[in-house]
Amino acid sequence: MKIDSPPFDRPLQLDDIRAAGERLAPWIHRTPVMTSKTLDERTGGSIFLKSENFQKVGAFKIRGAMNAMLQLGDAEKARGVVTHSSGNHGQALAQAGQWLGVPVTVVMPRTAPAIKRAATEGYGATVVPCEPTLEARESNVNRLIAEQGLTLIHPFDNWQVIAGQGTAAWELLDQAGPLDLVICPVGGGGLLAGTALTVKGRSPSTRVIGAEPKAADDAQRSLASGSIEPSHDPKTIADGLRTSLGEKPFSIIKENVDSIVTATEPEILEAMRFVWERFKMIIEPSCAVPVAPVYNRQLPVKGLRVGIIITGGNVDLEPLFAELAAKWL
Amino acid sequence: MKIDSPPFDRPLQLDDIRAAGERLAPWIHRTPVMTSKTLDERTGGSIFLKSENFQKVGAFKIRGAMNAMLQLGDAEKARGVVTHSSGNHGQALAQAGQWLGVPVTVVMPRTAPAIKRAATEGYGATVVPCEPTLEARESNVNRLIAEQGLTLIHPFDNWQVIAGQGTAAWELLDQAGPLDLVICPVGGGGLLAGTALTVKGRSPSTRVIGAEPKAADDAQRSLASGSIEPSHDPKTIADGLRTSLGEKPFSIIKENVDSIVTATEPEILEAMRFVWERFKMIIEPSCAVPVAPVYNRQLPVKGLRVGIIITGGNVDLEPLFAELAAKWL
Repeated sequence: MKIDSPPFDRPLQLDDIRAAGERLAPWIHRTPVMTSKTLDERTGGSIFLKSENFQKVGAFKIRGAMNAMLQLGDAEKARGVVTHSSGNHGQALAQAGQWLGVPVTVVMPRTAPAIKRAATEGYGATVVPCEPTLEARESNVNRLIAEQGLTLIHPFDNWQVIAGQGTAAWELLDQAGPLDLVICPVGGGGLLAGTALTVKGRSPSTRVIGAEPKAADDAQRSLASGSIEPSHDPKTIADGLRTSLGEKPFSIIKENVDSIVTATEPEILEAMRFVWERFKMIIEPSCAVPVAPVYNRQLPVKGLRVGIIITGGNVDLEPLFAELAAKWL
Repeated sequence: MKIDSPPFDRPLQLDDIRAAGERLAPWIHRTPVMTSKTLDERTGGSIFLKSENFQKVGAFKIRGAMNAMLQLGDAEKARGVVTHSSGNHGQALAQAGQWLGVPVTVVMPRTAPAIKRAATEGYGATVVPCEPTLEARESNVNRLIAEQGLTLIHPFDNWQVIAGQGTAAWELLDQAGPLDLVICPVGGGGLLAGTALTVKGRSPSTRVIGAEPKAADDAQRSLASGSIEPSHDPKTIADGLRTSLGEKPFSIIKENVDSIVTATEPEILEAMRFVWERFKMIIEPSCAVPVAPVYNRQLPVKGLRVGIIITGGNVDLEPLFAELAAKWL
């Protein structure tokens, strides 16, 4: 019987991602890879969308959350876990906790949409509202750790979370075959770090590119300077990518990622609409960020086989359906 | 060399649908069957969505249009074809014509959305606008037939179109395995007729149910009375189902369909939103009509294996993206 999860004091390795994939297989979907003749003809490349919008809880975040949760010791599981997130990681951790019977507490800004709080509570988690500042968030998490002995499962600055996120790219390589290029969004960097480690480990000649909103270009600036250069309260529709890079992901990204591209807000919306209309898939604005430079041909992909990680499909549909109801009911 | 397509003077048979499937295979997608644990838990059944929203041109209509087009004689192909449709059938016929080099003319009401006209023209068809009345539509079609020798490919009152539409249910049975119940929407009746013939032919004990908007319940009334009872200018968000039953589809439907269920406008919107949110798929309002009675548990499916034909995903996303642009750009 494990009492506590082992310290993770060596660099993350490809085998950690392989092991995460085997650990996660019984719990999550092997999501489909979608293609579009229209997109291929427009770009001259072969574009493969690894569609994690069809994943459990509607986003890849269940991979990292569940991989971390599955490696807790029994004492840690009994005491429970805590995280801070107003988005998909909170819901993913809540779902993982519900599956394993582990109490989950999510610290969430009071300003988070009611629908996100309800979704997180719907998976059985306890939501602790806090002021919408970094300080309030951290002090609440630290207080809960001190008072209740909870284990922090950080949304991206956690090796097991990074290993879990890398399993999406692992599947993509198995499903799509050899790729010349893999692009994925970068916010805190967990997905990009896991993706880069996986792709460079299995196919060293494949380029790995991160994509982020122009309005939150901290990864591009950080990769250029060699140290983390945070964005401060960036305004972008890509709500999953407002976060700045974490230390652990950055240590992997700076060694394994070829470059970072950015997309403006109009480009993000245009690419999102294209995917909705042509792929008939609901994707979050954050997923449109890596699609944009391919769709608008700023990133040349002619003759290339290109994988893009589509991260999630959790969008607030209320405005659209309110309008339809007003028109038809 | 065929000069003209043969007259179709015998009842449509299961083998016609099998042949249509083989004829269509090189041209169309074998669309996926999607499932949702949430929907299964909510209903107590196993629900399989045959997702023709992922089909070429975004709808099952390419099956019937292409099946009819592939059986034209060379002289008919050279003269070209005509249809009347402001929706998916017009786009589907235009695509089929583009593939085969057959000129396509689509008579469309002047009131049709510009986006639909543009989409049809985008596949190379000629759009002939007419007044938005049945008389204007028919007189324009008849004039084009008389003047240019065009062949009419009716959206649903055509045996080869019906045979083509039946191939979706054929694939569904292959993909999902034995089913207790198959539900599909009914407007003009081409899809329901093809589906019923396929399902009853291959699995006589499987029930086949048509679903239509309560506001356009002509199929329910027609099945009850035994003769076609049209709806007059029905108001429903399910724009694909405003049409009343055609003679040829009805001749099959009255022999092979077990019953017709209806959905109110709020029920249609509720089911459509559920599919968007949980399946992350964009479906048209018409597709939500057969989902509604299952989702809201008016049609008991506990313990049953249920197939639903999801007909298409062509939705005008402009209102949603206009709002997003206003908020973020």
